[in-house]
Amino acid sequence: MRPYSGEKLCVRCFCLSIENKVRVTIAKYDMLRFDDKIAIGVSGGKDSVALLHIMTKLEESFPNAKLTAVLVDEGIKGYRDEALKIAEKGCRKLGVKHVVVSFKEMFGYELDELVERLREKEPDGGGLTPCAYCGVLRRRALNSAARSCGATKLATAHNLDDETQTILLNILHGDPLRIARVKPVSSSTHFSFVCRIKPFCEILEKETTLYAYLKKIEFQSIPCPYASTALRNDIRTMLNRMEEKHSGLKYTTYRSAEKLWSSIENKAKAEKQKNCKICGEPTVNEICQPCKMLQSL
Amino acid sequence: MRPYSGEKLCVRCFCLSIENKVRVTIAKYDMLRFDDKIAIGVSGGKDSVALLHIMTKLEESFPNAKLTAVLVDEGIKGYRDEALKIAEKGCRKLGVKHVVVSFKEMFGYELDELVERLREKEPDGGGLTPCAYCGVLRRRALNSAARSCGATKLATAHNLDDETQTILLNILHGDPLRIARVKPVSSSTHFSFVCRIKPFCEILEKETTLYAYLKKIEFQSIPCPYASTALRNDIRTMLNRMEEKHSGLKYTTYRSAEKLWSSIENKAKAEKQKNCKICGEPTVNEICQPCKMLQSL
Repeated sequence: MRPYSGEKLCVRCFCLSIENKVRVTIAKYDMLRFDDKIAIGVSGGKDSVALLHIMTKLEESFPNAKLTAVLVDEGIKGYRDEALKIAEKGCRKLGVKHVVVSFKEMFGYELDELVERLREKEPDGGGLTPCAYCGVLRRRALNSAARSCGATKLATAHNLDDETQTILLNILHGDPLRIARVKPVSSSTHFSFVCRIKPFCEILEKETTLYAYLKKIEFQSIPCPYASTALRNDIRTMLNRMEEKHSGLKYTTYRSAEKLWSSIENKAKAEKQKNCKICGEPTVNEICQPCKMLQSL
Repeated sequence: MRPYSGEKLCVRCFCLSIENKVRVTIAKYDMLRFDDKIAIGVSGGKDSVALLHIMTKLEESFPNAKLTAVLVDEGIKGYRDEALKIAEKGCRKLGVKHVVVSFKEMFGYELDELVERLREKEPDGGGLTPCAYCGVLRRRALNSAARSCGATKLATAHNLDDETQTILLNILHGDPLRIARVKPVSSSTHFSFVCRIKPFCEILEKETTLYAYLKKIEFQSIPCPYASTALRNDIRTMLNRMEEKHSGLKYTTYRSAEKLWSSIENKAKAEKQKNCKICGEPTVNEICQPCKMLQSL
């Protein structure tokens, strides 16, 4: 049963409801055109394999659209290597072309090496967790790979839980203007930036997971060894507890962000994007975050 | 020790630090002029009696300022009646003039009667808790009483905990534009509206409580019998847990609201204030909330 709506669904209807919700979300936020070349970031985790599955189904009705899976190998032994195998297998099964890009090729370090270097340099991590580095570099890797494939859109599998966690994280961190980045369709107009879309943004994690289980889709289920023990985890626990008691709360939190977007957008836009002096990629400062991070090593 | 700053203070220095923080907050947000006639809402709880104590001290340096305590008798047997006695005793001890206004006189009902009527009419409360009614009516009572005293400012003892709870409550409720109301100085320009200020807005509840204890100020310590079991309580618990693990979090949350104020103010202001068709008090709708609530009974 869905606590937030009271519906009771059988397996088939539940799966259809998720696929339909993705269709509705794509239409609601005007995420796709009939002829978009779509890159999907696939990590091998439950959300991304479920998204790949659903997008492959949807694409069948659009002969001029094209789908490519982008797999990022951050270089995390015993974790990402296995997830990548699962992701590759999933792509072959669905007949979706895939490309793999690695941190090692692109930035010169595997994440494992990078973390080791960081720990040598600053035993306390210099205030940044491995997740902070990984997040910034992965976003860059995804964008570059999507651009290389000629993609016009880059779909990621961020779900409602991810987005509401980010909203609260930004509020609790004192950084509310970053809520603009939670938007379901990114609004950057920089020429080298592939427009990001989030077709799962209004679907609960519980439901994307259940979808993957019911559809018997193989996915990586062990957590990342670097998984942050920081604020985001506490926010996740707290939000799940609150959602259990006050069902629908994640939706209303997302609605808050939606209402804030138009107000904070102007402020966020004021930070105009320039080209990074080192790599030429879009940035609001002189040097982009990935380059700054790599320089600090 | 203050976890967020690392300071270790003796009793005397701690109390001075709180008094000083109030002084700094008043200056920072330009809350008061040297000749303001200040009404303070005093409930008899720890925050309001501590604020009364500190404001009395501060007022000594401003011979043209005037202080009046406003006590609201909501009509809650076994609770507010005792708190009022404590509040009155505190005022006499400090030599501060006080006025008492009651829900019964002003609106025709004690809160106890109102709750009983509500339960008869709608056993589920019609979606609104006693706190929702009490809050709206108390704000109106405070404003009217302050205006009757000729006050130019109305000080309330909302502390940092209250304010961050309200910020998160609004986000989780899907009502982020209400964050504009958390401002330390209210910006309504309606002629019958007494400008509200919150000199404790940047002080943790833990510290206002400790101040009241250390100064041996008598206060009401039992909780209100109607105390809401709703979302705010869960948010309070969650924020306290998080502050313990990530100290300073309540401050950064408040900073978020501060950064949002200018962005959302225009939207909030768009809801221009008119005069209520029944009582003439300021409202954004045709009929003000207190009148709407009273009509529904």
